[in-house]
Amino acid sequence: MANSPSGDSMTERIVRVLETFTADRTVQTAAGIGRRAGLPSSTAHRIVDDLVAAGLLERDDEHRVRLGMRLWELALRGSMALRLRQAALPHMEGVQAQVREHTQLAVLEQDEALFLERLSHPDAGANITRVAGRLPLNASSSGLVLLAHADPALRERVLGRPLRAVSPETVTDAGVLRRLLATVRRQGFVVAPGSIEAVSTGVAVPIRDRGEVVAALSVVLPRETATGPAVAALRAAARRIEEDLAR
Amino acid sequence: MANSPSGDSMTERIVRVLETFTADRTVQTAAGIGRRAGLPSSTAHRIVDDLVAAGLLERDDEHRVRLGMRLWELALRGSMALRLRQAALPHMEGVQAQVREHTQLAVLEQDEALFLERLSHPDAGANITRVAGRLPLNASSSGLVLLAHADPALRERVLGRPLRAVSPETVTDAGVLRRLLATVRRQGFVVAPGSIEAVSTGVAVPIRDRGEVVAALSVVLPRETATGPAVAALRAAARRIEEDLAR
Repeated sequence: MANSPSGDSMTERIVRVLETFTADRTVQTAAGIGRRAGLPSSTAHRIVDDLVAAGLLERDDEHRVRLGMRLWELALRGSMALRLRQAALPHMEGVQAQVREHTQLAVLEQDEALFLERLSHPDAGANITRVAGRLPLNASSSGLVLLAHADPALRERVLGRPLRAVSPETVTDAGVLRRLLATVRRQGFVVAPGSIEAVSTGVAVPIRDRGEVVAALSVVLPRETATGPAVAALRAAARRIEEDLAR
Repeated sequence: MANSPSGDSMTERIVRVLETFTADRTVQTAAGIGRRAGLPSSTAHRIVDDLVAAGLLERDDEHRVRLGMRLWELALRGSMALRLRQAALPHMEGVQAQVREHTQLAVLEQDEALFLERLSHPDAGANITRVAGRLPLNASSSGLVLLAHADPALRERVLGRPLRAVSPETVTDAGVLRRLLATVRRQGFVVAPGSIEAVSTGVAVPIRDRGEVVAALSVVLPRETATGPAVAALRAAARRIEEDLAR
């Protein structure tokens, strides 16, 4: 019904338009969007006009567009992302008050760890994660927990492909990673020193909803910090988040 | 290009599909979506299939669909909602620590107050607001601040229509509301007792970005609580959020 001559659906073209917006590129012209989305200029203009009319994009006085609040509202209202994040936020604040370091909530999405929330303590060090940002499953502590508990088919697919290194210490050997994931499942947490940055250690635990792991809760500690108290704080918080999700 | 016989664009039909998801209805069948969106069943199934293929919806084992994490990611990454909320969150936590009541961040969207964030203190009372939820501009304290500083044309449009009461104390008289909004602009804050619920008072202040009011920061206090400390805490937090937005 809405397919272009190239065969991609209107929905796919809308996604390609939305994908051109990033944390570092929040305002664009329709021409710029078309170029980045690989769409003919007339098509890009027409889709942008449609999206502006629907409120999913907003146009400013200089005819540039940005993501609309209406899109944000439609994407959040009724989403699992919001439900998870609302259940987790009070307990993430508790972890942050105890551990005083960055605290993150992540889910598995398209073979990567997608970060739903991040609380940053004013005293905490650098942190690569961003809300709505992603990291490889084999590198971030959240990703390791999510991969350890993922559907076996997905896990084998990830293990069967080249594994990307984010730092020199990221585990990129499939055999080593497989053994690490088994340990994560047995222990119920992961401690990943230097796998993202040499100066820090990620610590993560799973969060379950009706028996299934649906998210990972993590903190980023300075490399020299003892990890025991963070593991304990994360496990206690995960338990409370699971109770709130079960309500 | 993508218009149906009834003349609505594919984008509009996608929006109608997404609109059927709410905080209370997070999982639906394609047939249910079609019924609620007023779309023929075959059209609804086709759009749902397209949205699932693009990851904007996710299908479970029972063939029901929910909003996808990919939609959440595309809507947030690069959005003004995320930027505002990231700038505000640490300072909202400060307000909450001081005032120990619900703390909200709202923006003006389609003539209503749309809530971007809400922190709820465990000891705080009831609160009608939800993240990604809305309230009328004339009822919520956030809405009154946003309406006071809105574009005059929008303000006159809202004042020229029947004003909806959320509680018996909601201001619904255009003349009274106009004078209240002038006071809000002069004072730099609003105190709205009972306008949402008889037992509580909303207190809100504007947040500016490059001189323009872009959001309102508010707390909900028990009706008997003195409002002075909350006004002071909100004004100080708004100042700090504005500094962070200006960076």
